[in-house]
Amino acid sequence: MPTLAFLRHGQSQWNLENRFTGWMDVDLTEKGEAEARRAGELLKESGAEFDACFTSVQTRAIRTLNLALEEMGESWLPVTKDWRLNERHYGGLTGLDKAETAAKHGEEQVHIWRRSFDVPPPELDDPERFPSLSDRRYAGVTTPKTESLKLTLERVEPYWTAEIRPHLEQGQNLIIAAHGNSLRALVKLLFGVADEDIPGVEIPTGNPLLIELDDQIRVTGARYLDDSRAQPLPTVG
Amino acid sequence: MPTLAFLRHGQSQWNLENRFTGWMDVDLTEKGEAEARRAGELLKESGAEFDACFTSVQTRAIRTLNLALEEMGESWLPVTKDWRLNERHYGGLTGLDKAETAAKHGEEQVHIWRRSFDVPPPELDDPERFPSLSDRRYAGVTTPKTESLKLTLERVEPYWTAEIRPHLEQGQNLIIAAHGNSLRALVKLLFGVADEDIPGVEIPTGNPLLIELDDQIRVTGARYLDDSRAQPLPTVG
Repeated sequence: MPTLAFLRHGQSQWNLENRFTGWMDVDLTEKGEAEARRAGELLKESGAEFDACFTSVQTRAIRTLNLALEEMGESWLPVTKDWRLNERHYGGLTGLDKAETAAKHGEEQVHIWRRSFDVPPPELDDPERFPSLSDRRYAGVTTPKTESLKLTLERVEPYWTAEIRPHLEQGQNLIIAAHGNSLRALVKLLFGVADEDIPGVEIPTGNPLLIELDDQIRVTGARYLDDSRAQPLPTVG
Repeated sequence: MPTLAFLRHGQSQWNLENRFTGWMDVDLTEKGEAEARRAGELLKESGAEFDACFTSVQTRAIRTLNLALEEMGESWLPVTKDWRLNERHYGGLTGLDKAETAAKHGEEQVHIWRRSFDVPPPELDDPERFPSLSDRRYAGVTTPKTESLKLTLERVEPYWTAEIRPHLEQGQNLIIAAHGNSLRALVKLLFGVADEDIPGVEIPTGNPLLIELDDQIRVTGARYLDDSRAQPLPTVG
């Protein structure tokens, strides 16, 4: 029966600076690198034998995967990178300090943008400030200008169905190294979490979520590999 | 017109220890990591815009590519890993100290094994000593027990023709991060170097070879990116 590991990237420079990141291509901090290596140790200790990996086109997720694979001694695993596993696009909030944004727009509005299912932030109106949101890695892609979690799900789901799920149906074990919201979208799909509950689900960094599936790709079990930092898991809906 | 960059991995632990490495999966030393980063700087400074990358399933080449891509800010580039870009398989010499081997078999015999085109070393008779030569990364592959440069070329060439060349024919610019002998095989193919001359061609580490091609994938120009360490290039045959 196939196994699926979700790996959320660790601390990035803008996590550290408490800025909205989204599609901005920010690198890991040293702490984030250590979280990635720790995740690799945990994946190795799990004894799972992986066949392939998927990640976004964002440096912090790719480097998290690369560092984890190094720790596992499995750098040879095939890795597919796709923008549809990117973090949610934070639109006009990209680059803003979270505290300053709350001071400007009000705590309540920022909470809605961050924690509602279907309310996107304002569109990014000066995209040239952030060239990595639209550079040549997105050639041929109609890139979003902002996204809610719902809009994130709407591009994650077709990718999951067309490109990832068929590998699981063939019995392969996969690692998906991605971001808080692209992984939330996948958790919603797999665990059947309700719209109103999914924004509250937090996948921790540096602590892989190992999901056991049956041959219909239904969840039969799930656990975080670092028990000492266990979080309540979504109930299968 | 397409551009092709050859990137040979830098110093590995067994290069440092002067041991025959071949298919043994040895990691880079710190010096090797620095060479990889320097190669990435040179590739970035070249201004070439790459579309995709190819490498072996050996850690030292994969990590060289990953480190170079990090320096370039292009970790998002697609990377395909294939055993047919592996180093030449050194058979029964794998793991042996080069000086000890010369003392045992004679300088002349070792020179023949290292520098002839078509004389493979003896087969590896105790493969269980080196599990990374036949582990699950080679599932489904009939792995060699030893290789001459000629035998290396015989598995590099079909991969080049079927998997790499078509990208160039579509006008893509590619990076190939590989090993002394798999790159030698590619240089022989592209530059038309004679059998007796190719063992003497040395591709330096940490100094990418940038090759300009025409639409028939014929070499129109080639240069090492670090001029200060320029080496004579093969004449196009």
